[in-house]
Amino acid sequence: MEFDLIKLIRARAAAAREDVVLGIGDDAALVQVPAGQQVAMAVDTLVEGVHFLAGTAPADIGYKALAVNLSDLAAMGAAPAWALLALTLPEPDAAFVDDFATGFAQMAAAHGLALVGGDTTRGPLCVSVAVHGLVPQGHAMRRDGARPGDVLMVTGTLGDAAAGLACLRQCDVSPDAAADGDARARVIRRLHRPQPRVAAGAWLRNVATACIDVSDGLLADAAHIARASGVGVQIEAASLPLSPALRALFPDMAPSLAMTGGDDYELCFTVPPGCMAQVVSALAGLGCGATCIGRIVAGSGVVVHDVDGHEMTPSRRGWEHFGT
Amino acid sequence: MEFDLIKLIRARAAAAREDVVLGIGDDAALVQVPAGQQVAMAVDTLVEGVHFLAGTAPADIGYKALAVNLSDLAAMGAAPAWALLALTLPEPDAAFVDDFATGFAQMAAAHGLALVGGDTTRGPLCVSVAVHGLVPQGHAMRRDGARPGDVLMVTGTLGDAAAGLACLRQCDVSPDAAADGDARARVIRRLHRPQPRVAAGAWLRNVATACIDVSDGLLADAAHIARASGVGVQIEAASLPLSPALRALFPDMAPSLAMTGGDDYELCFTVPPGCMAQVVSALAGLGCGATCIGRIVAGSGVVVHDVDGHEMTPSRRGWEHFGT
Repeated sequence: MEFDLIKLIRARAAAAREDVVLGIGDDAALVQVPAGQQVAMAVDTLVEGVHFLAGTAPADIGYKALAVNLSDLAAMGAAPAWALLALTLPEPDAAFVDDFATGFAQMAAAHGLALVGGDTTRGPLCVSVAVHGLVPQGHAMRRDGARPGDVLMVTGTLGDAAAGLACLRQCDVSPDAAADGDARARVIRRLHRPQPRVAAGAWLRNVATACIDVSDGLLADAAHIARASGVGVQIEAASLPLSPALRALFPDMAPSLAMTGGDDYELCFTVPPGCMAQVVSALAGLGCGATCIGRIVAGSGVVVHDVDGHEMTPSRRGWEHFGT
Repeated sequence: MEFDLIKLIRARAAAAREDVVLGIGDDAALVQVPAGQQVAMAVDTLVEGVHFLAGTAPADIGYKALAVNLSDLAAMGAAPAWALLALTLPEPDAAFVDDFATGFAQMAAAHGLALVGGDTTRGPLCVSVAVHGLVPQGHAMRRDGARPGDVLMVTGTLGDAAAGLACLRQCDVSPDAAADGDARARVIRRLHRPQPRVAAGAWLRNVATACIDVSDGLLADAAHIARASGVGVQIEAASLPLSPALRALFPDMAPSLAMTGGDDYELCFTVPPGCMAQVVSALAGLGCGATCIGRIVAGSGVVVHDVDGHEMTPSRRGWEHFGT
């Protein structure tokens, strides 16, 4: 049965790449790394009930399991190349796997990625994906290059995924009853179908001094840049990019969701101030936009300013596994 | 908490390798592949209650999770290089992680492997490891090169791990009551601490026509070679290498455990008959030994001969997830 599941996925998600010498079907896959390129690799796991609600469509799980990993590659400026998939299922379920494979393959095809290996096992529903990307030697973005004077920027909009989760759970915070169903559908789609900023990451590679993807929440992820770079981060709450759907659904909570919600998979990065206009223009051309939300200062930690320039104290600093 | 767990593991299991440009701590790791080498990659998952019994020592789980993956690299003839670890735990448990990391690090250190990335999540106990090895371009072993006339060989001994599991479960089959505790300890250790045949795989790379690791059970894995190579496999039951411990514990069941038990992580491979003496000598020098257990014929499938040369019909053809 293991082999049938992998075949089903292979039929959908094995893009042809010339650098794949041997794909699914042997003890290991074989790939050929082009000269002058380094390999970026990362792994992320999604567990039912922790990273997605029970009852989530299998296609959305497959799509998101790959998307969140490609977001890590995007943050390094790496081009997606190969993936290994470990899928644990309570029981053999061809319909589930077929649907899962469809979503996984959509994301893989969008970024020219080949699934080269996998393991399906029996157990509680859990998906672990290891991804590999290529980046020109010495040109990967890291978290540790931010310098005082740099500006802090972010792609796209923040908080939508958290709003989507709140809509699905109908708890914690209540969406505005007057907001229409279209807004709900938009933020739920942001939760289920995140768009890793692969093209933006590749463009930023030669400009950004530091970069991270917003997975744990803006404040938590900005704190990673601050710590790795040995600097302080100042964020202006009034500058946060918020979608019309988020504003309509959560008029009061929107900035808080944008700062701490997590699951956005936008890129948060720093650039010298002189590059800002060029970045805004280029990323608009790549369809995701970019917004300046603060700056890098000497010191440590993350400080948020409200519209009057006063320091804010957010209720929680982002989401970590196992609470606190 | 996620970051503390990874730090704990990193402190134990991050061997220094010059080809690791950036290890744990950023969105992705960065590695540099030496010129002339291809990358072999594989993923395997261990789930509590499916791949190991509840109550198994965390150090054994960590050790085995990496060992079974290195066995896949050994079957390709690849030298272990880097790993990504996805660990899912029901709750944060520093003692578990510390013990797990100790076992994982023992296996990593034995093979010069660096842990370069990881993800710890909350959920039912489950470990997924992705491993990467290096193999000279065009020299990896595969399953599809066996030719009629080749001999079928296997490293080490078979059936011990299955015997170890039977001893732990005290069911299915009963060990001989007279066999001593030392024999039990030996087979249980084979179950918990498999030795991937990395050095043997590297040596065999230029001699073997096909190779696979024995994870599902000899008959099932030999069938993979038969199918991939488009040939038939004949196995002589009387030739199977059985350990003294296995013979003492299961005098009657030993050949059956050796053929269908699985979890052995020996290498099963084919070589031209003229190479056999050289292989036996070289692998004896590498400490694992090698035994001729049959031959490759025109046709398809796997046939087992008993001591009189008659065809045997084994009760089950090896272990697959989700049953057959």
